[in-house]
Amino acid sequence: MPSIPPRRAVLLLSGGLDSATTLAIALREGYAVHALSFRYGQRHAIELEAARRIAEQSRVAEHVIATIDLAMFGGSALTSPDVAVPKDAPLNSGIPVTYVPARNTVFLSFALAWAEVLEADHIFIGVNALDYSGYPDCRSDYLEAFERMASLATKRAVEDGRTLRIHAPLLRLGKREIIELGTRLGVDYALTTSCYDPGAAGEACGHCDACRLRLRGFAEAGLEDPAVYRDRPVVTR
Amino acid sequence: MPSIPPRRAVLLLSGGLDSATTLAIALREGYAVHALSFRYGQRHAIELEAARRIAEQSRVAEHVIATIDLAMFGGSALTSPDVAVPKDAPLNSGIPVTYVPARNTVFLSFALAWAEVLEADHIFIGVNALDYSGYPDCRSDYLEAFERMASLATKRAVEDGRTLRIHAPLLRLGKREIIELGTRLGVDYALTTSCYDPGAAGEACGHCDACRLRLRGFAEAGLEDPAVYRDRPVVTR
Repeated sequence: MPSIPPRRAVLLLSGGLDSATTLAIALREGYAVHALSFRYGQRHAIELEAARRIAEQSRVAEHVIATIDLAMFGGSALTSPDVAVPKDAPLNSGIPVTYVPARNTVFLSFALAWAEVLEADHIFIGVNALDYSGYPDCRSDYLEAFERMASLATKRAVEDGRTLRIHAPLLRLGKREIIELGTRLGVDYALTTSCYDPGAAGEACGHCDACRLRLRGFAEAGLEDPAVYRDRPVVTR
Repeated sequence: MPSIPPRRAVLLLSGGLDSATTLAIALREGYAVHALSFRYGQRHAIELEAARRIAEQSRVAEHVIATIDLAMFGGSALTSPDVAVPKDAPLNSGIPVTYVPARNTVFLSFALAWAEVLEADHIFIGVNALDYSGYPDCRSDYLEAFERMASLATKRAVEDGRTLRIHAPLLRLGKREIIELGTRLGVDYALTTSCYDPGAAGEACGHCDACRLRLRGFAEAGLEDPAVYRDRPVVTR
């Protein structure tokens, strides 16, 4: 009896903790995963190296790194050398300067283009509405609107009546729950990187928003964060 | 009395007849136009040269050419050397092989990113539902869905309650009407290029879908097409 071929999915892989966990979920659900990362003018290439290692160790069907120029438009601490990454600032206080204009829209659009060529009806994205409540393009109503738009945008939609589904399995999970879930699924978090401002050898700063959310999540889960820190702050649960 | 600063708009400028006409409309409506073109793996750079000439002759505030790699995903005669551009095929018979997967979604996403940085609430696109009925991302329900998504995607939307408006002033016009309108607005169609498969000096082939739609439009308007053709077919009204 011939086996049923796995459903294909495009997955946005950043090299961070959230997308590595999302990848483990997609693989567990039986998808053939086509992982997509971006060289988009971010200050450091460390997250791309992390994405490459995660893709290699997982059983992804394919990993592609697309080069796009978002730094061209400016406007974010993550792509502009003129804007400093904030350290030890209060968390969850409005939209942070690390927000990259329309980033998820641009990333999801590329995922959609690839999904169309692959004849895939599924896109996975590791966004999280709790920790990133300040990012408009991490909210569920945004993702639903993208899904509706995408289901009208493609040849497959028009000719075959296929709809595109955006999977955001972490959307309503806290960092602690994400880490607990990933740990159960066997994610090697030593491969992931979260820091907005890492050192030359990839060591995390320990003080940007991303480091602090990550450290707090591991502390709350009662687990040791395997990441290497330049200066690991004391984190209390 | 201080004058009111003009509203800013991002406009997708391809170098073709439709976007040149759309540009003339946006300028006539008083927008400060930030024109955006793409080097996206298309076979020839002739349309980018045309876009540059059109932007130079018009009073655009700025013209940016973004480089993105859509050819990477394959799947279209416009970006893949393995797929031939069809010649003298029946027009309007389903989705053509010149369709680039999710192209308008990717282009509009970049326009949205730039609009957010510019604090612009307007994007102009020269899509046309009549001639390109086979392209899913040229239909009004697609554009409306993109507009809804975009109005949830940005910092401006969340913090200031601004919505983004997609202007597609050619959506319901035929090629003849577009040419007549552009001619009244002073568009120099000699600067524009439409051919999917031009020669080395930029001369149009005269036989691809785009050439034939253009030639028919000029013939119906009773005007001479100023484009240079390698082989200008006889077009009857």
